[in-house]
Amino acid sequence: MNFADRLLNKIDEKENPSVVGLDPRLKKIPSFIVEENISKYGKNFEAIGSIFFEFNKGLIDAIKDVVPAVKPQMAFYEQYGIYGFKSFVDTVNYAKKRGLLVIEDAKRNDIGSTAKAYSDGHIGMVDYFEGKEKSLDVDCITVNPYLGSDGINPFIESIEKYDKGIFVLVKTSNPSSGEFQDLTNNKGVKNFITIAKNVDAWCKKTIGETGYGSVGAVVGATYPEQAIELRKVMEKSIFLVPGYGAQGGSAKDVLPCFNKDGQGAIINSSRGINFAYQNSGYKEEDFEEASREAALKMRKDILTALKEGGICRW
Amino acid sequence: MNFADRLLNKIDEKENPSVVGLDPRLKKIPSFIVEENISKYGKNFEAIGSIFFEFNKGLIDAIKDVVPAVKPQMAFYEQYGIYGFKSFVDTVNYAKKRGLLVIEDAKRNDIGSTAKAYSDGHIGMVDYFEGKEKSLDVDCITVNPYLGSDGINPFIESIEKYDKGIFVLVKTSNPSSGEFQDLTNNKGVKNFITIAKNVDAWCKKTIGETGYGSVGAVVGATYPEQAIELRKVMEKSIFLVPGYGAQGGSAKDVLPCFNKDGQGAIINSSRGINFAYQNSGYKEEDFEEASREAALKMRKDILTALKEGGICRW
Repeated sequence: MNFADRLLNKIDEKENPSVVGLDPRLKKIPSFIVEENISKYGKNFEAIGSIFFEFNKGLIDAIKDVVPAVKPQMAFYEQYGIYGFKSFVDTVNYAKKRGLLVIEDAKRNDIGSTAKAYSDGHIGMVDYFEGKEKSLDVDCITVNPYLGSDGINPFIESIEKYDKGIFVLVKTSNPSSGEFQDLTNNKGVKNFITIAKNVDAWCKKTIGETGYGSVGAVVGATYPEQAIELRKVMEKSIFLVPGYGAQGGSAKDVLPCFNKDGQGAIINSSRGINFAYQNSGYKEEDFEEASREAALKMRKDILTALKEGGICRW
Repeated sequence: MNFADRLLNKIDEKENPSVVGLDPRLKKIPSFIVEENISKYGKNFEAIGSIFFEFNKGLIDAIKDVVPAVKPQMAFYEQYGIYGFKSFVDTVNYAKKRGLLVIEDAKRNDIGSTAKAYSDGHIGMVDYFEGKEKSLDVDCITVNPYLGSDGINPFIESIEKYDKGIFVLVKTSNPSSGEFQDLTNNKGVKNFITIAKNVDAWCKKTIGETGYGSVGAVVGATYPEQAIELRKVMEKSIFLVPGYGAQGGSAKDVLPCFNKDGQGAIINSSRGINFAYQNSGYKEEDFEEASREAALKMRKDILTALKEGGICRW
């Protein structure tokens, strides 16, 4: 089953179009996890990798029946080198075993032959001694469009061959996203709309049974007006929507990211769920419960907004 | 000493404005290295990581007195997961011990708080149990500008604090780079020029004793006409120039990337040097010699073009 269908089915199964980012930060992880791993490994990068994985296991177990997917942000792992990278791999495998889809947030891209290496490694198969082997094998990955279609085509090949997906950066959630993405060209079209039109064309090569394609778009919750425009340009694409919660986007702000059928978007929250125990009067030993409660609250907020908008499917 | 100065001094020391990309591909590595590592590890990813590192050690030893820097392309390593990533780290450390600067080609970026994690990990210092520690610690990294200045500022902080550098993608060497980079805005300015103007402003915050700054630009050798324009916009930036050799750019094509002082550019070749033994009638046991010869030939070609252009410094 293609990625778009798998994701939308999983959203329907959980009745929840939201995803939890897994963005571990050493200084925000409960101290008992930190101490346990220092006792085991000493104060080193190996301990940090293990701290991240232990923390993520707790989060994943706490939310695995609530959300359809998790979105580990590669930057927070690879910054700790080999052991950080290992904790990313361990986290991905753990989440998959728990029945969750994995959206890798890595914003990769390069020229064609190099983009192929990223695509092979993350969502395809890599050259092996004889034939090919799966490597990181996430369900989908975020990609950057600045290099044009040469850099995207190798990912589309993996999408078609291995039922994987990508989310292309279109309109990002950060304050300076407009500096470049919002420039208007000499035909009156904004850069992010040009990218969106390309995404739409790529997406239409990958349509599944649900009518959606496996080339999605990253559209920030912090820009609801742009989302209205973008929803029209990319009807068949699923929007991955960062910027909800800690970055300032509300449940109402994300409504324009959905189609009239109540489908077509998945809303991310990372910090607000990962470290919920710090804001909610929980003891740090109960961080899982705090995160579960925050994930359930996010689900409720989004469903309420969808109902008020008259487009809730459930 | 800031990164721009370190790089330009190293170029002067070697009298060579070129860099060798380290882009290992399993099926192109001499079979005796492959067989040795299969005997040691079996047929698995650990063997592949070790094959890459052994091959790179040979290349680095063969060219360490010829070039100022190497440019490992992260995609080729991370596609093999943990062991691939480890071989990247081992390669970086080996090259640094041999006195080479390391330009990490990873084209990273993200929103501000996440870009900070990339910057901390690759060219800065990461949060540690107490204080901070160095992690990957390369000399500089390539970054993608699509997210605007939020995504660049954390890298500029590391540049200033730790004497590191970045090369921002401006005009990439691939055939489809124009699809988006060449669009003209409603003020008649092409997207790649807009990015270049930003690079120039960022660069001017980081000027060293040579008069150059540590925010450089990626400008493809395959687009010499655009390079002429870009050289005017980014006077103080060093250009990292891919596309020479296997991608079709000639020594003459790269001339516009240099300033009139014969400085300001470093030309990359990867495939043409890495696998030179396959084209030159060498035995695979002599791959180092073939690569050294190819690196010397590249140096000679570029110096000849610089001399013919009347801008050779040596």
